[in-house]
Amino acid sequence: MYLVFEGIEGSGKSVQIKLLYQFLVDRGYSVFVTKEPGSTLIGTEIRAILLNSRNINIHKSTEIFLYLADRSEHIDKVVKPNLNSFDFIISDRSFYSTLVYQGFGRGIDLNFLNYLNNFVVGDTVPDKIFLLDCPVDIGLKRALTRESLKDIDESRFENENFDFHKRVRDGYLNIANSSRENWFIIDSSSDVDTVFDSIKRVVVDFIDNGRN
Amino acid sequence: MYLVFEGIEGSGKSVQIKLLYQFLVDRGYSVFVTKEPGSTLIGTEIRAILLNSRNINIHKSTEIFLYLADRSEHIDKVVKPNLNSFDFIISDRSFYSTLVYQGFGRGIDLNFLNYLNNFVVGDTVPDKIFLLDCPVDIGLKRALTRESLKDIDESRFENENFDFHKRVRDGYLNIANSSRENWFIIDSSSDVDTVFDSIKRVVVDFIDNGRN
Repeated sequence: MYLVFEGIEGSGKSVQIKLLYQFLVDRGYSVFVTKEPGSTLIGTEIRAILLNSRNINIHKSTEIFLYLADRSEHIDKVVKPNLNSFDFIISDRSFYSTLVYQGFGRGIDLNFLNYLNNFVVGDTVPDKIFLLDCPVDIGLKRALTRESLKDIDESRFENENFDFHKRVRDGYLNIANSSRENWFIIDSSSDVDTVFDSIKRVVVDFIDNGRN
Repeated sequence: MYLVFEGIEGSGKSVQIKLLYQFLVDRGYSVFVTKEPGSTLIGTEIRAILLNSRNINIHKSTEIFLYLADRSEHIDKVVKPNLNSFDFIISDRSFYSTLVYQGFGRGIDLNFLNYLNNFVVGDTVPDKIFLLDCPVDIGLKRALTRESLKDIDESRFENENFDFHKRVRDGYLNIANSSRENWFIIDSSSDVDTVFDSIKRVVVDFIDNGRN
């Protein structure tokens, strides 16, 4: 089963993924955790360009194509080869991030992005997507106080304003609400344990009811 | 006027571009010389990934998107801003290289590549394209003896076989022959001066006959 976590910065994806990983492993499942961008050799270099580029005023098409290049490597070398050997693959972000950040966020044509994403991922699409949803100000506040990412995210948040993240949040809600069969909107504005309880309920439910 | 040189490795593009640059400058024109990939800050990093990737077995979609990312930066930050301030822009390679190397060479759908290239370059298309054409064995022999590029190109030629370069050459001829109004096929198998004489004749002709 291929699970994806999506959400704005500071929505709590990485903490919740760690909790879910532990929960599933404790139940005896094999779990492979990955993320986009930066999970392959080439992806690491691409991610470095994307992070450095925050200060260079990168062209928005350049940004799209770098994310797509990273995704091609990730699907080909990480997701596909592991899909059959693990019970669960959990990915922090997926092609939906490009759709939402570049499409809803930066105004790139959604059909164009869908077309490209489809070329890259083919039928390697997530079975279930968790949208960790919280108000933008809560997310940004959380992201800015994360010690380890502070230097990276501060420069990012200076370049991308509040309205941008608002469009991203709305974009996520828009997509999730129109595909309720495989998207789960989780209110992630409360504390870590409460949020994880909601995720756990969903996961236990689809484990108990079989793969589909 | 936006001039582009295309051709297989070792077809003599860089030498001929230097000669043309000097010829035009001596005639009093302002000339800006550039190349793809690697002519922007981000492009330099992308080019480094592409060169390193020769040893990693990069996925062919990853390769396409990296070239497109490089091209987005190049068109936006180099070609467009200089088109109005110079009499001539001469570029070593353009979107045609992606069409030919990834399309004809690696079998990626040509319509897909045309669509993407068009998204990236819009109406910033070359006025005239010189195809430096020579048999693949002559090109490869030349490329392999070039002192400065030896380490780069040797690993590249080990990974890409003769047939690949043959498909690339045929792809170029195919495109050039179907657009004879702006493509000029130059036989580049003879010595440098003879080749440049052919190029010079074409350039003098379209200078004397005005921009179109």
